[in-house]
Amino acid sequence: MHVNGKHYRTLWFENGDVHMIDQTLLPFQFRIFTAHSYEDTCQAITNMKTRGAGAIGAAAGFAMAQAYLQAEQTGNDNIVAIARKEIEETRPTARNLFYAVEKVYEAGKKSVDAALKMAQYIADENVEEALSIGRYGNELIHTGSRIETHCNAGWLGFVDYGSALAPIYLAKESGKKVHVFVDETRPRSQGARLTAWELKNEGISHVIISDNAGAHFMSKGLVDIMIVGADRVAANGDVANKIGTLEKAIVAKQYGIPFYVAMPLSTIDLDCEKGEDITIEERDESEILFQEGPDDTGQITRIWVCNPGSEILNPAFDITPAELITGFITSKGIIKPNKKAINELF
Amino acid sequence: MHVNGKHYRTLWFENGDVHMIDQTLLPFQFRIFTAHSYEDTCQAITNMKTRGAGAIGAAAGFAMAQAYLQAEQTGNDNIVAIARKEIEETRPTARNLFYAVEKVYEAGKKSVDAALKMAQYIADENVEEALSIGRYGNELIHTGSRIETHCNAGWLGFVDYGSALAPIYLAKESGKKVHVFVDETRPRSQGARLTAWELKNEGISHVIISDNAGAHFMSKGLVDIMIVGADRVAANGDVANKIGTLEKAIVAKQYGIPFYVAMPLSTIDLDCEKGEDITIEERDESEILFQEGPDDTGQITRIWVCNPGSEILNPAFDITPAELITGFITSKGIIKPNKKAINELF
Repeated sequence: MHVNGKHYRTLWFENGDVHMIDQTLLPFQFRIFTAHSYEDTCQAITNMKTRGAGAIGAAAGFAMAQAYLQAEQTGNDNIVAIARKEIEETRPTARNLFYAVEKVYEAGKKSVDAALKMAQYIADENVEEALSIGRYGNELIHTGSRIETHCNAGWLGFVDYGSALAPIYLAKESGKKVHVFVDETRPRSQGARLTAWELKNEGISHVIISDNAGAHFMSKGLVDIMIVGADRVAANGDVANKIGTLEKAIVAKQYGIPFYVAMPLSTIDLDCEKGEDITIEERDESEILFQEGPDDTGQITRIWVCNPGSEILNPAFDITPAELITGFITSKGIIKPNKKAINELF
Repeated sequence: MHVNGKHYRTLWFENGDVHMIDQTLLPFQFRIFTAHSYEDTCQAITNMKTRGAGAIGAAAGFAMAQAYLQAEQTGNDNIVAIARKEIEETRPTARNLFYAVEKVYEAGKKSVDAALKMAQYIADENVEEALSIGRYGNELIHTGSRIETHCNAGWLGFVDYGSALAPIYLAKESGKKVHVFVDETRPRSQGARLTAWELKNEGISHVIISDNAGAHFMSKGLVDIMIVGADRVAANGDVANKIGTLEKAIVAKQYGIPFYVAMPLSTIDLDCEKGEDITIEERDESEILFQEGPDDTGQITRIWVCNPGSEILNPAFDITPAELITGFITSKGIIKPNKKAINELF
């Protein structure tokens, strides 16, 4: 997608470095962060400089390739195993991360070059898949469609195009006019900050709403379809995604609004039988206690937004059971959220 | 309730002035704001220096009494009618406001003193009612109960004790140990700021959670009961309350969790047949675009938290249909949310 008319991927690899759009500064500053080592890349994943299932996967693949390069340069082969462990610990809920690490790790057993090629292949594959997801998802959208989305499963969450937002971008490319309800998505506000930034850049009509307002607009008949992404899909069709997804799925069901989950195949974890088996990441309470953004002078400032001294719980994801999901938008078509349909994808 | 060991009401009247805890500064600063005229009081209601159904009602009653005083002092009787209109326009969704204005307006036809007495009576009545609500609601709570609440229907939303939080305070007074899940309640974060501040002051175990996390905790069986307040209750039992209430009611129903609405009788509007007839207040987009709070130096600072240039919709309330509500906790007992039971209250 484009920023100020220039095409960018969310992240890319060049001469041993991983370059990425620093998403912690968006939408207020557009800056490229460069990770010179796998350690830098791990830290960037942990600090959410890059985030979203697809982008994390690509970053993890690049980090694994960096580890092979560092092992070669230092002559210390132990780096590879240490790196693998460290990369896998950065964001334990992200299925794509394990997929990418495994692929690049295996390729690297042949040669460093094979590891680099595999990491690049994973990033390119991610773009191709996003395009396919977009084309299939576009069939669900017509001019006038009012689409609600949660968090950011857009271009920034991927290498390009996104998962949940890809159908919207493809709808736009095919000349359809749509309108998007963007959930703020506290605590990190990826909807209000990233999805809104993407849609604004692409000139797509949208409104930011508080996470509390979804049911209100759905109850008024103002939402035609909801499309979200996924961090991990279990073999039975249960979905782990950004906290609040479960809430929206329940509300959508109440009002008979189709609720779709869009994701690349690598997000599906056949080894994971059901949603309950997925580890839910508990993130730091500071995400809820504070908000960060530019003050009136443009200075990025952290402020308190909660009562100091109160306890906080901050689960980053929730599990939406398959029965609340209308369908999965995948790169191989739109399928029902059940074991049989999922198995047929592979 | 108490602040630093001293008893305070949320607001009180003295020599023509309305004194109120400035809730826009909480939980970071505890300061009393003094409104010297009905215009000051109107502005304080609009700016949410005082907020919550009960407190708005009492403030509106005091404002109406101030108008009678000002008419007497200036010899300009027109002030009364002008004031009435202005007061009623401050927060059009709040049923208690119209109730208090009407009562004080009628009393003032007799004498200014009667207006003052009626305004004080409304404030005192509010405290008595809150106590009754608390006693009845306490019957639903036992030691170990895990209660979720939304927004602030506590002491600060009333003159004392609150509606949704009154049962929790009475449970504590009767020796029960409870735990409260406090929804952040974006965009104004009354849960994270005010409810958490109240509960912390009273030494009640609680956690602040993002509005997105309610369904997650409910799905894990960690919430036993949900209690919220109301801004207006229609004759058929539909409830207008803080945006997000509808969402929680739907989710609570999904998991079979009892969902109670606690409110004084004046919140019930028998002239309003059903929820659809209630005007939903659309508040300024700045509430979503920005957050305000102290920075690391304690300076209250406003920061951007959304993509600049995106459109925003900010409905302040939503309508929860009666069929999603388990019961109403009133000062006359716990009743079913239907027309017949409501009529029997009066």
